[in-house]
Parts: sequence; structure tokens; C-alpha cells
Amino acid sequence: MSQVISRRELIELGLAGVAAATATSVSASPARASDGAVGFAVVGLGKLSLGQILPAFRTCRNARLAALVSGHRDKALRLAAEHNLSEGAVYSYEEFDRIAHNPEIEAVYIVLPNFMHAEYSVRAFKAGKHVLCEKPMATSVADAEKMIAAARAAERKLMIAYRCHYEPHNLEAMRRVRSGRYGRPRLVVTDMVRQSDPSDPSDAWRLDMAKSGGGALADMGIYGINGARYLVGEEPVEVRAWANTNRSDPRFRTVEDLVAWQFRFPSGAIANGSTSFATGGAMKWDMFCANARLRGDPGCYYSGNRLEIFSHPDQGEVKLPDIDQFAREMDWMADVVRGRAPLVSPGEEGLQDMRLIKAILDSVARGGPAVRTDWGYKRAYDPAAVVPVV
Amino acid sequence: MSQVISRRELIELGLAGVAAATATSVSASPARASDGAVGFAVVGLGKLSLGQILPAFRTCRNARLAALVSGHRDKALRLAAEHNLSEGAVYSYEEFDRIAHNPEIEAVYIVLPNFMHAEYSVRAFKAGKHVLCEKPMATSVADAEKMIAAARAAERKLMIAYRCHYEPHNLEAMRRVRSGRYGRPRLVVTDMVRQSDPSDPSDAWRLDMAKSGGGALADMGIYGINGARYLVGEEPVEVRAWANTNRSDPRFRTVEDLVAWQFRFPSGAIANGSTSFATGGAMKWDMFCANARLRGDPGCYYSGNRLEIFSHPDQGEVKLPDIDQFAREMDWMADVVRGRAPLVSPGEEGLQDMRLIKAILDSVARGGPAVRTDWGYKRAYDPAAVVPVV
Repeated sequence: MSQVISRRELIELGLAGVAAATATSVSASPARASDGAVGFAVVGLGKLSLGQILPAFRTCRNARLAALVSGHRDKALRLAAEHNLSEGAVYSYEEFDRIAHNPEIEAVYIVLPNFMHAEYSVRAFKAGKHVLCEKPMATSVADAEKMIAAARAAERKLMIAYRCHYEPHNLEAMRRVRSGRYGRPRLVVTDMVRQSDPSDPSDAWRLDMAKSGGGALADMGIYGINGARYLVGEEPVEVRAWANTNRSDPRFRTVEDLVAWQFRFPSGAIANGSTSFATGGAMKWDMFCANARLRGDPGCYYSGNRLEIFSHPDQGEVKLPDIDQFAREMDWMADVVRGRAPLVSPGEEGLQDMRLIKAILDSVARGGPAVRTDWGYKRAYDPAAVVPVV
Repeated sequence: MSQVISRRELIELGLAGVAAATATSVSASPARASDGAVGFAVVGLGKLSLGQILPAFRTCRNARLAALVSGHRDKALRLAAEHNLSEGAVYSYEEFDRIAHNPEIEAVYIVLPNFMHAEYSVRAFKAGKHVLCEKPMATSVADAEKMIAAARAAERKLMIAYRCHYEPHNLEAMRRVRSGRYGRPRLVVTDMVRQSDPSDPSDAWRLDMAKSGGGALADMGIYGINGARYLVGEEPVEVRAWANTNRSDPRFRTVEDLVAWQFRFPSGAIANGSTSFATGGAMKWDMFCANARLRGDPGCYYSGNRLEIFSHPDQGEVKLPDIDQFAREMDWMADVVRGRAPLVSPGEEGLQDMRLIKAILDSVARGGPAVRTDWGYKRAYDPAAVVPVV
């Protein structure tokens, strides 16, 4: 039996708080604002920008493309023309700091290789701009902390681009788990794997430890690390991991390939997770509560995600719209900038994953022992803090 | 795109050896043999016997019901009448050894609570009968070894009832992985969980450590332990596990509830597994090879199992018949008794799982450290040793 969720049904499900949040959120269904839209500079014109982010602006409601920053001026000029931007809206990396003088740019979206996130975020804050930064937010805990400090010093917003925090199927899963409808969260299983291709420039740097901060773990695994946290609604207190990496494969000279980890949560819930850059692909999770299984398979794709509930009386697929996740994320950031929405994926949320990636790699490097991770990070996991589904 | 596999296609897939095995196996599609069928005594008339095993005899080709052994004479007599057995074919547990004098009984199928498996297997061997024993084969490694020794001393066959070793979807997955078509096995994920009900007599003993030998781990988890092994096609060299058990729940006074484990295989492949008696239900596995994901979800049910391949060019569901797994298993045992089929799930296979369950529980008891499991058990995992799919 398929299910489509209305606000009324949320109330019937005992999710009155969620329904209220949906009702009161200005951003749940904001009017299109061509004036007043927040102008973004997109920094880095690789595969993700070209394939997803630039096209997404066409469906944004509150965010608009204001500038492009690239090392390839010809490409940038061509794209600027396609998106009705003037030549003056194109910046090289050397000219980046000059965005300070462009009032059309209120926020920058950092879509660079991971090792450049910190530098360009800090420079953006110095230029007085807000920052939306791709995940992982940096390649080290220290850099992540530097970014958070820079945002604070500049009194600007730092949002990490966790797509799934704004994606209907994942949001609905969070919301249902948080409602208590299915009983206590017990076990979450996440597997985020794919084949990498070093001949693809967007993979070449991901296979370099210094540039990526963790290979598959930083690229794919982070969805499972973050997903386990937002599905269970707690922070791990203990982490351990085993790896299997073929060092004679030229892709894995500096990064681990297959990493399989376990988290222990304060309630006793456990996560089994995995990532790899050298297996058949999947981005999927399973959440086992006392009285239900929730399956997201696929769970974290750009589109085509599914949410299935195995339980009584909710047996079946929950039909939800397949939205443009990048558009929604940028619209949310725009609302954050305008003070109309809470910052649900701030720098601190990204820092937590950076620290967990480090803990996993530390465990791997030491042969797998458990590493304590109860350093006190607490996210607000109450239902009201969950972004509305649509 | 759905797929149905013929012998011809197996050859085209490069699985000529498999196709040959299919072609040469007498048992792949044996003629119905009403004479010459092997007579079974079913020992224990609980839920599994009543719901699955007795009905399965109606579709068996080489196995027939010859006797019933039960502590409830009235129930046994009623069932005997339903299955056209005489009163003389009904035995109490006290009378069990008298089966020695009944030539109609060539094999016994032990469907008792786990702690009774060893005693009744040994007594059956002493009575000169072959034994098909439900999994887990015993509640301790020592008992399992005793059963194997008794079979050897009696020169009789001991087969453990691993349904999935005879189930088309699991067999086809093994066969495809073993063929090398999808590259090296890297990661297997198994989750075998359900809610237990202590008011159900068939669950009451499963919640007693002495009677079950391991709670959920012995009942559900064993499918994932065994599944990881037959999917990867190797034996674990290292095992570790964390548990989460609510000791104030009356179900979990003596057994663990949620157990989440990791295996390391000699090739470097890793398994993440879990089991629980107190979450929403699932019996599913995911096998990640270098170039494909194989999904069995559900993977180990009595019926309705699925096999999906995520790969090029095999993308899609593999359509296979939904056979009576118990009938096939008993027919296979009959063929083993007649010397027409190899014993693919012998006592040694059951012993390996007993030792792995012990290793997992040892790791749990000690707080999760890795336990070496490279004690030298080697199963024949070559494609020719895989049972034909149908």
C-alpha cells in the first residue's frame, strides 16, 4: 500500500509538532521572489556544478546565480552567457577576494575539491559573504574549526551542503523515527559504495588523501556516517573500523578503499556502515526500530530515492516527490541568510563528521580498536528541528 | 529487466561448469519415485513441523513421511491419520530407540528445540538411521562434535537443514559470485531480525540460553553468519561483535538481543552482520563484488525471496521459481542417502557455524575484541560444489 503524507495525516500520526513546524515554516512553500532572491557565487565549475548545481538555479525560488569563480575563464564565460550573467560576474581564483565589492553576491557555494574548501570559505567570510560549502566541509578537523571560527568572526552563516537533510524521503524517515511511532531506534545499516575512475578529473583528486581527506570515506561514506546519526537521532560514543585496501591498485596509493565500521550510540543503538571506491554501486540505508524497518534503497541518490516501511499498519512505500535537492538546499540557505529559516546543517554538523572520519581512520590505522567519540557534540534532534518534508 | 536463467544461458554466461553440473546431477530433476522413496521420521511436532515440514512431504519426490515422534500422542495420532500413517508409526520420546526396528524409517528429521538435537541425533545414529537436523545443529561446539562422531561411528549421513543451500535465489547468487562474472567479492551485509514472542511456545525456548544456544543469534543470526560464508565463498579468519540487550526485558534474561558483528575473510573481504529478537523484521543480505551488487531482500524467507542484480549488463531482477524449500531439502537428503547426491551441508558445516556463534558471543562477553577464527575449516566453494538452482 502506497502512502502520501499530508499535513492532516501527520497530525493523525501524532506528529502534531511536525505538522505545526510545517505550517509555520515560511520556507515550506515560499512564494517565488525574483527580487529579494539571494545571489550566489558558485566557486568551482567541475562535474557537480555543471551537472547539478547550475541547472538547479533554474528551479530555485529564493536563490539566484550571481557569479562564477573558476580557473577556466573560457568555460566560465560560456556558462555565464548561458545563465545571463555579465562578464563582470566571472572571477578567477586570483581575483576571488574582489567578490567583496560585488553586492550582487551575498553567498558563495563552495564546490571545489575538498582541500580547497577551508581556504575559499575563509576568504569568502573575509569578503563579507555567507558560505554554503560542499561536504565533507574540509580535509581536517583543524581546517573545519578554522572555517567555523571565520564564520563567527565575520558574523556570517556557514551551512554545509548535506543534501539529505533537505531531501523528502530522508526527512520523512527522520520524522517518523523521531515521532516514536515505531518504537526505539535499535540498529542502522548504511552502505555507500561505488566504482571510482581515476581518469575522471572529479575522481582523480578524490583518490588523493591530501586533496580529499579520506577517499571513499570522505566522498561516499560520509553519507552513511551522517545518515546513521540523523536516522538514529543520537551521536556515536564509540567507533571502530576495519579496512581492506589493495595497495597495488594505483587508485589506492594514499587512501583506503573498503572501510567497514561500527558505531555505538548512547541509547545502545548500533550502526553497521561501509564504504568503498571499488565495488558495484549503492547508496542505501536500513533503519530498524523496535516495531518497524524503514528502508531507503536507494536512499541518498540525486533522484529516485525511495522510502519503504515494513511494519503494521504502515506496510508499503511512502510516495514522496522527487524534488531537485540542490535547488531546495540553496533555497534553504537563502532563507537562512534572510533570517527566515534555522541553520540545520551548520559548520558544527560538518565538524562532527570530520571528527568521526578521523576516528574511523584512526581505528583503521591501529588495526581496528574502538575509539571513544563522546566529545560532547549534541545536535538538536527533536522533531521540530527537522526540515519540513516538502 | 527481468531475467530467467536457462542452462543454455548459464553456458553463455561463461558458467559452463555450472551448466554441466546441472546437466549431470541426477537430482536436478529426478523422476517421482513412490517406490524407493526414503522414509523419514519427523521428530518434534512444533510450529515448523506442522506449518512447513509435514505439508512439504506432499510435494517431495524422493522422500516420504514414515513416522512421527512426539510427546503429544493425541496430536501425533491425528497427524498420522491425516498423512495416512498407521498407529504403529507414532512414537513417544521414550519409545524413540525402537525406530531401529522399523525398516520403513531410513532417516530422521530432527525438528526439536536446539538443546535436544544432539541427544536425538546420537540416538538416531545408534538406531542405524541417517539424520537431517535443523539448524543450529546443537547448543554447543562439544555437542556438535559428538553428533559428527556418532554419524561417523554409525556410518550414517548427518545433514544440517540449511534451507538456503537448496533455495534457488541463494543458489543463483552463489553461482554468479563464484563464476567471477562480477569480480572479486568484497563486502557482504546481512541483517536477520524479528520480534520474538515469549507467549509463543516456539519462541519461549529460543529465549532460553540453555535451550537455544544463543537466542536471536542461534535462530536468525545463523542465516547471516552462514549466508556471509556461502556468498563470499570463504571462511572468516577474524570475528568481533557488539551487543545491545535490555536485561530488564523479561525476554532477555539469559540471551543477548541485538548483536552486530564483523567478519574478516582471508581475501580481505569483510562482512557486517546483525541479528535481533526485538526489532521490526527482515531477512536480507547484500553482496558487493568489485563490479556488481547482488541484493537478496527478502533473502532467506520460506517463500517470496528475491534476487536483484545491480550491475551492467545484468541490471534487474533474476526471476526464479519459488519452490517448497523444505521439500527440496528432504529430497536432497533422500538423494544423499541413496548415494545420488553429495552431502553439501554436512555436520562439519553446522559445526563451523556453532564455533562462529561461540566466537561472536565470546567477543560480546569480552566487550567486543576480535577473536581469531582461522582454525582451518575449509568448505569446497568451487562452482561445481553448488547445488543446481532448480
